[in-house]
Amino acid sequence: MKKTMLTALMTGPRKIELVERDIPVPGPDQVLIRLEYVGICGSDLHILEKDWGGRVTAPHVLGHECAGVVVEAGSRVGNPLPGDRVAVEPGRTCGKCEYCRTGRYNLCREVKFLAAPNTPASPQVDGAFCEYLAHDADLCFKLPERLSTLEGALIEPLAVGFHAANQGGARPGQSAVVVGAGCIGLVSMMALRICGVARVFVCDIMKNRLAKAAELGADAAVDSRDPAAAADRLLELTGGAGCDLAVDTAGISAMAGETVRALKKGANLVLVGYSPDGSLVIPLREIINKEITLRSVFRYRNIYPMAIESAAAGLVDLKRIVSNVYPLSEAPRALAEGLENKASIVKSVLRMPVP
Amino acid sequence: MKKTMLTALMTGPRKIELVERDIPVPGPDQVLIRLEYVGICGSDLHILEKDWGGRVTAPHVLGHECAGVVVEAGSRVGNPLPGDRVAVEPGRTCGKCEYCRTGRYNLCREVKFLAAPNTPASPQVDGAFCEYLAHDADLCFKLPERLSTLEGALIEPLAVGFHAANQGGARPGQSAVVVGAGCIGLVSMMALRICGVARVFVCDIMKNRLAKAAELGADAAVDSRDPAAAADRLLELTGGAGCDLAVDTAGISAMAGETVRALKKGANLVLVGYSPDGSLVIPLREIINKEITLRSVFRYRNIYPMAIESAAAGLVDLKRIVSNVYPLSEAPRALAEGLENKASIVKSVLRMPVP
Amino acid sequence: MKKTMLTALMTGPRKIELVERDIPVPGPDQVLIRLEYVGICGSDLHILEKDWGGRVTAPHVLGHECAGVVVEAGSRVGNPLPGDRVAVEPGRTCGKCEYCRTGRYNLCREVKFLAAPNTPASPQVDGAFCEYLAHDADLCFKLPERLSTLEGALIEPLAVGFHAANQGGARPGQSAVVVGAGCIGLVSMMALRICGVARVFVCDIMKNRLAKAAELGADAAVDSRDPAAAADRLLELTGGAGCDLAVDTAGISAMAGETVRALKKGANLVLVGYSPDGSLVIPLREIINKEITLRSVFRYRNIYPMAIESAAAGLVDLKRIVSNVYPLSEAPRALAEGLENKASIVKSVLRMPVP
Amino acid sequence: MKKTMLTALMTGPRKIELVERDIPVPGPDQVLIRLEYVGICGSDLHILEKDWGGRVTAPHVLGHECAGVVVEAGSRVGNPLPGDRVAVEPGRTCGKCEYCRTGRYNLCREVKFLAAPNTPASPQVDGAFCEYLAHDADLCFKLPERLSTLEGALIEPLAVGFHAANQGGARPGQSAVVVGAGCIGLVSMMALRICGVARVFVCDIMKNRLAKAAELGADAAVDSRDPAAAADRLLELTGGAGCDLAVDTAGISAMAGETVRALKKGANLVLVGYSPDGSLVIPLREIINKEITLRSVFRYRNIYPMAIESAAAGLVDLKRIVSNVYPLSEAPRALAEGLENKASIVKSVLRMPVP
Repeated sequence: MKKTMLTALMTGPRKIELVERDIPVPGPDQVLIRLEYVGICGSDLHILEKDWGGRVTAPHVLGHECAGVVVEAGSRVGNPLPGDRVAVEPGRTCGKCEYCRTGRYNLCREVKFLAAPNTPASPQVDGAFCEYLAHDADLCFKLPERLSTLEGALIEPLAVGFHAANQGGARPGQSAVVVGAGCIGLVSMMALRICGVARVFVCDIMKNRLAKAAELGADAAVDSRDPAAAADRLLELTGGAGCDLAVDTAGISAMAGETVRALKKGANLVLVGYSPDGSLVIPLREIINKEITLRSVFRYRNIYPMAIESAAAGLVDLKRIVSNVYPLSEAPRALAEGLENKASIVKSVLRMPVP
Repeated sequence: MKKTMLTALMTGPRKIELVERDIPVPGPDQVLIRLEYVGICGSDLHILEKDWGGRVTAPHVLGHECAGVVVEAGSRVGNPLPGDRVAVEPGRTCGKCEYCRTGRYNLCREVKFLAAPNTPASPQVDGAFCEYLAHDADLCFKLPERLSTLEGALIEPLAVGFHAANQGGARPGQSAVVVGAGCIGLVSMMALRICGVARVFVCDIMKNRLAKAAELGADAAVDSRDPAAAADRLLELTGGAGCDLAVDTAGISAMAGETVRALKKGANLVLVGYSPDGSLVIPLREIINKEITLRSVFRYRNIYPMAIESAAAGLVDLKRIVSNVYPLSEAPRALAEGLENKASIVKSVLRMPVP
Repeated sequence: MKKTMLTALMTGPRKIELVERDIPVPGPDQVLIRLEYVGICGSDLHILEKDWGGRVTAPHVLGHECAGVVVEAGSRVGNPLPGDRVAVEPGRTCGKCEYCRTGRYNLCREVKFLAAPNTPASPQVDGAFCEYLAHDADLCFKLPERLSTLEGALIEPLAVGFHAANQGGARPGQSAVVVGAGCIGLVSMMALRICGVARVFVCDIMKNRLAKAAELGADAAVDSRDPAAAADRLLELTGGAGCDLAVDTAGISAMAGETVRALKKGANLVLVGYSPDGSLVIPLREIINKEITLRSVFRYRNIYPMAIESAAAGLVDLKRIVSNVYPLSEAPRALAEGLENKASIVKSVLRMPVP
Repeated sequence: MKKTMLTALMTGPRKIELVERDIPVPGPDQVLIRLEYVGICGSDLHILEKDWGGRVTAPHVLGHECAGVVVEAGSRVGNPLPGDRVAVEPGRTCGKCEYCRTGRYNLCREVKFLAAPNTPASPQVDGAFCEYLAHDADLCFKLPERLSTLEGALIEPLAVGFHAANQGGARPGQSAVVVGAGCIGLVSMMALRICGVARVFVCDIMKNRLAKAAELGADAAVDSRDPAAAADRLLELTGGAGCDLAVDTAGISAMAGETVRALKKGANLVLVGYSPDGSLVIPLREIINKEITLRSVFRYRNIYPMAIESAAAGLVDLKRIVSNVYPLSEAPRALAEGLENKASIVKSVLRMPVP
């Protein structure tokens, strides 16, 4: 086996260079994965563009949505084994803190998350825009035959959508609205469907995004450039009753009030998207009078097994969110195009070289 | 409009006669429904055969799975209105007791349930094997265009399955086993699917029932004449892991222990089916060591809206459980055949005359 | 029995007159209660001061926190019976809508709530600042011997605190902060204690309120005139960990951000208090990063039985929140003093004449 | 520091010898604790008496209810530190499996639990009937000043009671029955109280146990030698309504049916105690008709912090369950007396030598 691997290295703001780096050596509880597909996430572009407010130090490797084939297993690893195709859950957590022990490991302070910036409790970790990844075996989930590694790489964004559906208590028969038809909005729609939600409406301010939502099966794609008109439309679509559930991936105060207006009493509003300035104005009186619950979503927890099973059962076709596939050797172009066309690309994916 | 209606009257154990009875007059909060389809339930046959241990007094009208068209609305009724097609939830509850007020109205002691026997708190109520029914408007749920009244009548059995899925905490990605492939087993399977359960296995001791389960989409139809072999098969189907959830519609002690063995730690076992002698032997040690939860199902609550929305969204094809359709005028034959072939008929339905 | 009763009638903004009115006649499902104590709520003062933005039309009877003795029972009433002392739950709901049927009857659109203003679905209803009240029997909860009718009248405000504790998922061992030490803040503290919360901190901007909170058992009374300093203090009190739960009865944007800062990851923030302008600015980024849940509280549901049992078990001493007791004949003075000293009076109560 | 420690060693069935053994050396993530108190659990006696069906191989050290003072901390340990007094959670889990990751770590197959027998996934581990214990730092919970190490050792049995209360959904205002007044029954009663349960009734067949339950605050101590009479008494105590919750620590089929009869519809029955033959006969018809839920309890999870906070807040006085305290040097006698008087001793505790 070769000793080095092609790596798309972030060498500074907006700079990606192709370099050769040493192939990592897996620890005793790790496996070495030959990656096949790695998705490009909005957070990758955010880091590349602005180094996350100085919290990321170049050189850095981006990428955390990945899948591939196990080629080596550490001495203590029983599963997965070489030859297994796996989807990679990117965050290694401590397993010991209050959050890990209560099953909310996504809140672990010591998480080491592929490609993520520094936190007070954890240094930045290199990501997956490269050929090989050494990763904890228990975070590598075997893919059933029916799923490709391309789909495996997309389990990660689907997991965010699934966690949004879970936090929102999505249930069969409900009507839901997803605000924002970017990648997270679309995977939220997919997850809501898997949970049996009967009708999913999607709002956005851009025509091409609304068209994509409709193509992927939204019951209605609602233009929300005029938030009040969008809320009126949602009320009309639900016969005046309002939606049972909203997933907000946009973080826009002007829309938040109208989203609440379009909800039924007792409904849940799930906050997934950050706002530009970090805060949100909410209509407190209406929230109390309707007894609305606001849940929030930070990454996800305990989703990979259920997401993989759901995709394997044919309940979602993840490939349909892929806008473009680039070879790793064209990572600089892929990321540059990503930065330029954030609003129109749903999901670009890097395809790793076949050995 | 005519004044009397054809009625299939139970005049004694195993005796059904066709008679003309007065069409009922709806109260101010009721609607009068011209019924189109009424399903025959196992409990109808049970009453017909044995008058439920003397708790039912002939003459009595059976039938509680019904749908039709509103033809008259009481003075205080705003919805539904004449011309609306509706599915009928058969239990009128008091709205005031602890159970009603906490949303568990299926446990209301004063429930008046169509065709059900006497209880200490409520006399027996005539059912729906007849042309017209006067029923509380708030229990008549409008059917969307996409759903027929045949499907509307089948919302009732689906509601039992849905309540089983809810009680079991059915979630996307799970593997579940349904023990018993009678009508309730099959609608439980359908409800589990709507909830996103990835794999549903069905056990039964009869070949024709297993064939029906397979036809309706079971991932595996498992012969459980040998309970231990069935549990082994379920463990094999789940790669040794066991199922996340079991719905037991059979109430057989010999199977209960093996069902628990086929479950994962922390799993839920939903008890839906009564046992012949009223009791069940459970493997306490294994239940504690695996921390299994046993939930139970008495009718259902708050299911009609979600079940109707789910069926309207195309997530279930209820018509596929129908074994036979008889005109009301052949109700005596329909019920006699039901009594004779309990094990092989999934669901017979009476079709009411078109005026 | 006499035919008329003394009534404190609101005849216009800030105007209360003592008049004689007919004693009401209970309906068949109602009881007639001779009231003994009726609390004065902030909402009574709000209506009296500003007629709730024109939604209340004088003449009107205020008051909804009440308890007394049943003196007459309607023809269909089996419980309570004459001689029983009862606490009155003031909202009569329809028992039929989606909210009533799912146990969330506090969201029923057709609620008729004593003394409350008009809503689109329900006219204003006279309240309880009078000697006798005819009320639905199922909303009149018998008081055990150990509880006085003064305590019975205070079950209503405690119910709000209890619902806040329930919505917040209050559990043994937690540390909680209550923002605002008015009546609702104090009953929230009491309810949190009953739920086993180990440490309750109370914030306010007024010294006398903080002193009252301390007197009633707050583990710390924290001055929040400087919100950031208050958050620092809460973090210090919890050894840097932050609180598990916050109940916000103040609705102040400047404090909301600091309250979130004083919470642990994954914590719940319960919104009980309205803000002056109806909206609230929340720190969205921190809420998402900590995965905070915001629950809200509109009145309460299914609390009376548990609150009465808790008080009867000696888990709370409700009398301690009473600031003043006035005879009904001094209702004008009582309400005038209430309007003048809103911030310093926790709870004034009217004592009805003994016949 | 000395190199060896006094150890009460199980050298065979019913044989305990005092020996000197090497003081263990803590690993990098461990602390060394000088134990002060170690409780004697029924499972210790069970192992001592019957070596758990051959699953325990002598020599073996029993004991898992312990607390003491940290005297040494491994290289990677930041908390607790030498000098800290700690209560010890005895089960080390893998932190990586499905159960650990979903917060149900008590179901981890690879748990290493102090003194517990072999399992397929884990070898037997020596326990705490000795002077020093090396244990994972994250399982050693600091005791607040207010709590003694005697109370610290009793957190373990309280944790079982707390988990029973949690599984049963114990809430303020409820009435609960605890079946069995042994140690687990009594700590369950204590935990129910902390959760705000208003009335707790305790059943047992032995007078001295009932007297102890009454002494510790049971609202009623009910003789259950005649199970039907006991159920009648429970119904009488609840005014005919039945209990909201039962915790069964006895595992007796004859009582299980009567316990269900003494429960309200919709109630929870928590299964904590094993039955002599491993199975239980349950009244399936009544369970379904009342829609009873049966939860089960295997050890506990995520209880130590809340239990310690609750005890520190003065909500429970754990010392009151202690029947006897023996010095470690009298462990042979303590255990022999335990075997002889199982039914009358609530909790014996070993006191370790003061250095």
